[in-house]
Amino acid sequence: MSKEVIKEEIHLEHSSLRYPLPEGLLKELAMELPSINEYPGGGEYRLLRTELARYTGTSCGSVLPANGSDEIIEAVTRAFGKKLILIPVPTFSQYEVSADRNGFAKKLVNSLKGCNYQLDYTADDLKKASLVWICNPNNPTGNVIPRKDIIKVLHLTSGIVAVDECNYEYAGETVVDLLGQYPHLVICRSFSKNFGLAGLRLGFALSSLKNIHEIAGYLQVFRVNKMAETAGIKVLKYLDYFQEIWQEIALVRENFVSGLRDLGVKTFTSRTNFVLADFITEENTRRVCQYLQSENIFSCPSWGEECTGLEKHYLRFTIGTNKEMNLVLELLAGILK
Amino acid sequence: MSKEVIKEEIHLEHSSLRYPLPEGLLKELAMELPSINEYPGGGEYRLLRTELARYTGTSCGSVLPANGSDEIIEAVTRAFGKKLILIPVPTFSQYEVSADRNGFAKKLVNSLKGCNYQLDYTADDLKKASLVWICNPNNPTGNVIPRKDIIKVLHLTSGIVAVDECNYEYAGETVVDLLGQYPHLVICRSFSKNFGLAGLRLGFALSSLKNIHEIAGYLQVFRVNKMAETAGIKVLKYLDYFQEIWQEIALVRENFVSGLRDLGVKTFTSRTNFVLADFITEENTRRVCQYLQSENIFSCPSWGEECTGLEKHYLRFTIGTNKEMNLVLELLAGILK
Repeated sequence: MSKEVIKEEIHLEHSSLRYPLPEGLLKELAMELPSINEYPGGGEYRLLRTELARYTGTSCGSVLPANGSDEIIEAVTRAFGKKLILIPVPTFSQYEVSADRNGFAKKLVNSLKGCNYQLDYTADDLKKASLVWICNPNNPTGNVIPRKDIIKVLHLTSGIVAVDECNYEYAGETVVDLLGQYPHLVICRSFSKNFGLAGLRLGFALSSLKNIHEIAGYLQVFRVNKMAETAGIKVLKYLDYFQEIWQEIALVRENFVSGLRDLGVKTFTSRTNFVLADFITEENTRRVCQYLQSENIFSCPSWGEECTGLEKHYLRFTIGTNKEMNLVLELLAGILK
Repeated sequence: MSKEVIKEEIHLEHSSLRYPLPEGLLKELAMELPSINEYPGGGEYRLLRTELARYTGTSCGSVLPANGSDEIIEAVTRAFGKKLILIPVPTFSQYEVSADRNGFAKKLVNSLKGCNYQLDYTADDLKKASLVWICNPNNPTGNVIPRKDIIKVLHLTSGIVAVDECNYEYAGETVVDLLGQYPHLVICRSFSKNFGLAGLRLGFALSSLKNIHEIAGYLQVFRVNKMAETAGIKVLKYLDYFQEIWQEIALVRENFVSGLRDLGVKTFTSRTNFVLADFITEENTRRVCQYLQSENIFSCPSWGEECTGLEKHYLRFTIGTNKEMNLVLELLAGILK
């Protein structure tokens, strides 16, 4: 009988944080467990909203927490998407999924030129739209949308401009400061990803009181569970810990990108915890994806459900530890030579 | 300075279980905490669905878990409520909230005669309806709907008949066994209430593959968080513990009801963990409610958001410990004499 070596699985297919949570936070969450027989949110999640407002530099009334940001996307779509929804592709799939689920008119606008992702909405489209999505940084490409391009969109539409900043924490660029100036701006954020709380589900919207009220009309009263609520309140005490991790991930990402370039693999300029790599043909990409999987390494292929409007010759890799990413490079070197 | 005695608050306004969770379950949940940085549900919540199917005597494909049963009510409404929704009042408010949120036509059908709650749908209404709600046992009255009355409705409509069995565990009466026979039957259940998991949020639907697929189209992929998922999988090991509690609650409830009768307060015949008591006039009911609140005892008043179609002279009390309910009786004796 041959000796079997069982390799550890390395999951790089989801964009959630692949680093352990602070011990202190886990202890605080464990202390909350005996009270999970009580309903969450006592008084409209006021404490959670206060903490999220403090973190984002907004006010309690501008913050609307939900069961993950997917739920925010659905509620924003239901509240504002009735006329026409503009979606810049390739991008995160849920904007289109929500549009389709509600039977709303949508227009997918190609925003890719080579390895360059740039908003390309026409003035006419923007005039007709009731909801315009901007994912910043964009998923799956990882690039930051220039602030002036977002402002341009805000000026050319009277529809709601929803900027999805779920991957905000790595690049640190935000349009939160524009909320006061543009009453038709809605921002989506998430603690699921960059604060390592994907399992608990915690997303939120930031906007004017009026918009928040409108969006909240599509959400359940008890939508955020008690553990997510507690985690959202407590996790910001550990901001230093996460900031160090985000910096470390940026370093590992740059090493990985440079390793891919050495192998002749083109990538998009990412400022998130994932990198989109171009393997030129679908056939080749499938071969690479399957080979990595046979070695217990899971990537996010462009033909999966994560993205809308992406050609089928890409793989997205979430950044793990340096050791894990070097293993990916080593295996790619073997199969690509 | 006067000596202040701070009384403990007694919350009888929510219908969640007011008893501690088993220590073993809390330990198992604590062990899961380090993995909350991973997305929940790996493979469409297969393990959770398998356990829920085992508990309900159905199959994995007939089970659809969600973020609390409020979310199931909303998804069922969106999937089937387009034409006409029938709601037997007084009943749980969320059927009407969901109908209104979606702008669907609804008909509230009075089902109360004195202290007797009985389905009173006409054949004509049932013919026109695309969705018929039955809350069994009913919230807030607590009574069980006779099985034959549900079967009658199933025969008279081709719309979806949604039986909300969220309070099933106390009375133990269910129409799960009718699922195979009636493809237009959908059952809603909850672990939030009777298994003491209100803070984690866990509801589910039971129906045919076709209906489940239809309802799932209105739900997010990662809707059930990892702690609720784990709790749902593990909690059934402690079924004996909960069954003892449910029996104890039934005894405490009967003592409480008989105490109310001695005070001349009429109640509905409840087979749940709550009792609806009639204080005759709105003025008197408000006086009683406020007095109890001043004594740190919180009840669920009929003018709150819990119920649709209930006159304003009722208070609903969730059953706590015998000591707590005796304290309520003692205070009522004081104010009602």
